[in-house]
Amino acid sequence: MNRFEPNLRIPGPTSLPDAVREAGARQMVNHRGPEFAVLQNSIIDRLKKFYKTDGDVLIVTAAGTGGLESAIVSFLSPGDKVLAITIGAFGDRFAKIATVYGADVTKLSFEWGKAADPAKVREALQAGGPWKAVLMTQNETSTAVTNPIQDLAKAVKDVAPDALVIVDAISGLGAVPFDTDGWNLDVVVSGSQKAWMVAPGLCFVSVSKRAWDAAATAKMPKFYFDLAAHKTSAESGQTPWTPAVAVMFQLDAALTLMEQEGLEDIWKRHAAVGAAVRAGLTTLGFKLLADPEFASDTVTGAWIPEDLDWKTFNGKLRKLGLVVAGGQGALKGKIFRIGHLGHVTVPAILNAMAVLEQTLLELGRPVVPGAAVEAAQVAALKSLGLVK
Amino acid sequence: MNRFEPNLRIPGPTSLPDAVREAGARQMVNHRGPEFAVLQNSIIDRLKKFYKTDGDVLIVTAAGTGGLESAIVSFLSPGDKVLAITIGAFGDRFAKIATVYGADVTKLSFEWGKAADPAKVREALQAGGPWKAVLMTQNETSTAVTNPIQDLAKAVKDVAPDALVIVDAISGLGAVPFDTDGWNLDVVVSGSQKAWMVAPGLCFVSVSKRAWDAAATAKMPKFYFDLAAHKTSAESGQTPWTPAVAVMFQLDAALTLMEQEGLEDIWKRHAAVGAAVRAGLTTLGFKLLADPEFASDTVTGAWIPEDLDWKTFNGKLRKLGLVVAGGQGALKGKIFRIGHLGHVTVPAILNAMAVLEQTLLELGRPVVPGAAVEAAQVAALKSLGLVK
Repeated sequence: MNRFEPNLRIPGPTSLPDAVREAGARQMVNHRGPEFAVLQNSIIDRLKKFYKTDGDVLIVTAAGTGGLESAIVSFLSPGDKVLAITIGAFGDRFAKIATVYGADVTKLSFEWGKAADPAKVREALQAGGPWKAVLMTQNETSTAVTNPIQDLAKAVKDVAPDALVIVDAISGLGAVPFDTDGWNLDVVVSGSQKAWMVAPGLCFVSVSKRAWDAAATAKMPKFYFDLAAHKTSAESGQTPWTPAVAVMFQLDAALTLMEQEGLEDIWKRHAAVGAAVRAGLTTLGFKLLADPEFASDTVTGAWIPEDLDWKTFNGKLRKLGLVVAGGQGALKGKIFRIGHLGHVTVPAILNAMAVLEQTLLELGRPVVPGAAVEAAQVAALKSLGLVK
Repeated sequence: MNRFEPNLRIPGPTSLPDAVREAGARQMVNHRGPEFAVLQNSIIDRLKKFYKTDGDVLIVTAAGTGGLESAIVSFLSPGDKVLAITIGAFGDRFAKIATVYGADVTKLSFEWGKAADPAKVREALQAGGPWKAVLMTQNETSTAVTNPIQDLAKAVKDVAPDALVIVDAISGLGAVPFDTDGWNLDVVVSGSQKAWMVAPGLCFVSVSKRAWDAAATAKMPKFYFDLAAHKTSAESGQTPWTPAVAVMFQLDAALTLMEQEGLEDIWKRHAAVGAAVRAGLTTLGFKLLADPEFASDTVTGAWIPEDLDWKTFNGKLRKLGLVVAGGQGALKGKIFRIGHLGHVTVPAILNAMAVLEQTLLELGRPVVPGAAVEAAQVAALKSLGLVK
């Protein structure tokens, strides 16, 4: 990782392992033929294990936002009462999609940097209804906060048991602990360019039996994002519209790598890199955005100090081969974000910390040489249980 | 091309040239960074030349059907009167999308295998209205017919000059003569996996000034497929949602190959392979579906003889490395189709004819050895003006 092979530390697209990259160079096959059907059937079976669901998982050719749209229009009707829990830009986007398609949306917003509070969700549910669905974000990429989905879903089950629980898990599923069926989640959306270590172009949507029942009477207009059409096609190993075949090849390769590592070890690796980034950035003097209790293990956001010229700083990072992300929405220009999901290791994080440290030193800022790298490494080792 | 490297003769995904395939294996970049902006700006400028338009061309991460949906929802409102000219399954699909989103659709259907008749379009336009839009298919992949788009668009301009002309050019644009601005077309949709020789996952939509004016008041619900959002993002070299980056890399490589060949020569090559396929199949005794005057130069459909067991026949073709497509919609099980667009040459067609001929002989059917290959080659040479 250097200026010729940058350390791509944005929260997706994640960089691709070589075996995944190279699968993107495969020759096309007939997407209505037997070879593709075997491929898709295998991928769906394997995705279900990472989702921890016995329900359906469908593959849609679109960015994650398209998956969110499919999760709204396939199950809801105009006028349906929807509670949209939002802790950032992506929660707001999810609420907006439901609004655009005519749902009666009540937005429950929490301060950016905080997780959603299950007690407040209970209150909001009790104050209104009857609720057709509750929207929530597992991992809010804009604020680097992971919501307590299990607790939020339990609040819905207790107070509004008929409501569908629809989860944006795009930037977390496959990287951090998740249990679709165990947590009673009805619809869960993920995207290929995140934990799955694959190029963008595909999203995945799990659907519970309850959600299919809702789909049967859902009246929002839909065509491309109609998940019922995807289910019908999937039964014969196809997709209703031509799928992103090359991305499917990459996904096949990536799932093999993920299976070799094992889900539990993937989760441990993400916990370690999350801890490493937070320790390193803090040691460098950055203030983190997220509530420490709910800090994401796939992305970290840090405030840009007022006396730091961000453009100069980021230009130097780029020259040293480190690519980070800026802020989104209300946080544009105020924070930067480091992605650490999918194809990420502790050494890759140490590399990032080293570049940040060197750049701060070049700008004459007071940092202790080596301290951030050391702190990141120790935090990772502690997370892995190798150091007390 | 053999059983290990099949001759993929379906009407998309087309097989990929090596330089295109290999571009699919590139490492990811930041889709909000300067490198991606340069890439997208370059691709859009070059697509405009193939579209022959000075209007906008936008890139959407979706299958072609998503592009069709974007062409409906971005410009129309529920209740708008729309004339949908259809000559097959994809024309019917386009009409259905408009219907689903609440347009007041009048379908003008022509017999499958025939092109749309501009005189009948004039009559239909005069009999109703006021028309907000007219939908038409340039190249109907299900029947292997190419519509006279220039004449159809002129009929609209003469009779209903305020109507937007919205064209599905997914399986033809880039392969056969087309002139977006010269023919006064407002919205034109194409797809990466067709003439562009790229994996599926991207579609392209051109938008005229008139269409943008309509977009300003369009009320159909939309989010992912909102082309106005794509235009805003494109102005800073981005897309509103994460784009299919690897497919963009492939498109960049494919456009270079297309520029090296030149648009006129690409058109000539497709005319030659179209003539070759039609001559070869006819010589083999197959009856073609399309009206000869409007036969497509990107795909050919042939009736399956009643006394030919298609499954046995197709199984033998596959063993010899030839992959063809079946029929769609009402033609399922009745025809087979040979794709000849994008990455296709006359020798690749001769290979297909040789496999078909050998297979017919194996099944004991009366064919003259070598005759189909000869006829295909002569037809190609005539098309190229090398033989009188």
